[in-house]
Amino acid sequence: MTEPFRTQRLVEFHDTDMAGIMHFAAFFQYMESAEHEFVRSLGFSVHSQIDGETISYPRVAASCDYLSPVRCEEVLDISILVERLGKKSITYSFEMASNGREIAVGKITCVCCRVTPGKAITSVPLPTEVREKLLAFVA
Amino acid sequence: MTEPFRTQRLVEFHDTDMAGIMHFAAFFQYMESAEHEFVRSLGFSVHSQIDGETISYPRVAASCDYLSPVRCEEVLDISILVERLGKKSITYSFEMASNGREIAVGKITCVCCRVTPGKAITSVPLPTEVREKLLAFVA
Amino acid sequence: MTEPFRTQRLVEFHDTDMAGIMHFAAFFQYMESAEHEFVRSLGFSVHSQIDGETISYPRVAASCDYLSPVRCEEVLDISILVERLGKKSITYSFEMASNGREIAVGKITCVCCRVTPGKAITSVPLPTEVREKLLAFVA
Amino acid sequence: MTEPFRTQRLVEFHDTDMAGIMHFAAFFQYMESAEHEFVRSLGFSVHSQIDGETISYPRVAASCDYLSPVRCEEVLDISILVERLGKKSITYSFEMASNGREIAVGKITCVCCRVTPGKAITSVPLPTEVREKLLAFVA
Repeated sequence: MTEPFRTQRLVEFHDTDMAGIMHFAAFFQYMESAEHEFVRSLGFSVHSQIDGETISYPRVAASCDYLSPVRCEEVLDISILVERLGKKSITYSFEMASNGREIAVGKITCVCCRVTPGKAITSVPLPTEVREKLLAFVA
Repeated sequence: MTEPFRTQRLVEFHDTDMAGIMHFAAFFQYMESAEHEFVRSLGFSVHSQIDGETISYPRVAASCDYLSPVRCEEVLDISILVERLGKKSITYSFEMASNGREIAVGKITCVCCRVTPGKAITSVPLPTEVREKLLAFVA
Repeated sequence: MTEPFRTQRLVEFHDTDMAGIMHFAAFFQYMESAEHEFVRSLGFSVHSQIDGETISYPRVAASCDYLSPVRCEEVLDISILVERLGKKSITYSFEMASNGREIAVGKITCVCCRVTPGKAITSVPLPTEVREKLLAFVA
Repeated sequence: MTEPFRTQRLVEFHDTDMAGIMHFAAFFQYMESAEHEFVRSLGFSVHSQIDGETISYPRVAASCDYLSPVRCEEVLDISILVERLGKKSITYSFEMASNGREIAVGKITCVCCRVTPGKAITSVPLPTEVREKLLAFVA
């Protein structure tokens, strides 16, 4: 079984809402923040200069199912796997739990793109070294 | 064919990111803001006091597909329909376009709940008047 | 007496926190959003291309005093004046009220800069037409 | 000389804007996040139940001076001191640097309040144990 990348995030006060729980849109920021930490742990960045071009990973799809509310200052245990590795795209899956309680599961699909300012955003194949490192995390 | 609720939002500078486009997580805030405007247009609120209890609509699922990037100060035309009306839950569907260009489609499912502080969050049936008004927008 | 630019913003659910009120950091986003609407009303943008350079207005100072809490779906009446117009900088002052109740007063100082990607951010004099239009709003 | 509380925050992608730098309003969230970590390190919370009342610390003033822009994935070194300790209020001062470069200095003043839902927000004296622990950090 593939071992996921694991990290933690504390639920911040400014991400709660008047219902007293973490706001649903904030989960997408926490997933992205964890994804970027994962990507850095592999030795690359989500926004880099390669051969004079700016390479970034705009999202084409994102989703989240909320299983249990989570409150300020609770710790989220976040696990990340690669659900699908395309030629140009990556689909990450996320599991979030707090103290053994399932909180949410989510997915983000992004596409490797040239986002050089002043030019149109264009999809490009994933760099070989990125693909190879992500292969170890394919579910 | 059911006529959707329609509104507009301007893409704000603080919702852009260093890739020069509106950040993917911000779409969920814009969808929620439009949903709440829709709900107010029907004469009720997303967070109200009924019989001494606080009624709110926590989300159980949210998703978005991104079709084209959108930039600062562009106007989003947002259309909302009710995709599914359960006994306790509502699934809204959203279409976002800018100047005729499709930008994103999304869904949010929420559940009618008592969120009275100090008590556990409990799902309750949708108030009858809410259900009846939403029926006109079922796709 | 100088007449301020006036606009309104509704307090959004996602800008509230678990204390049940609008979060203090969100006021800076609302002030900026109102400032940008003011700037658009004068016929220019906060992020524009002039002579092949990208001109933007990074902030050098921001402050806010909070006089009374404000809650979800309350309407903020926002008034903007130019407190100081420098050669390269602008200090805006903001008054926010809701239904006649004073909510907050704030200030933002920004500097006209070239922010062309790949080059260092450099301050430049305010374009003449910007200065002239802002003069009418100097307190 | 008083030794400040020190912590670090990584600049997240979603806190950058289209100018390519961390957005000015996000600094207030980072300051608050660091303040709350400081408060937890002293053994208490920013939102707690005491004698059946909810005690929280709404802000009455916040300000920030921006000295140098900071970019995605840079590390902010944050130092916190107590600038003023009133009977009911606390003013924190913040210094943020990145790799030895001064990025920003800020202040937040908050007031100890009862924020029990359904009752008016009322200021109350700082709990004795909170005051005593904060005294060691008065500048």
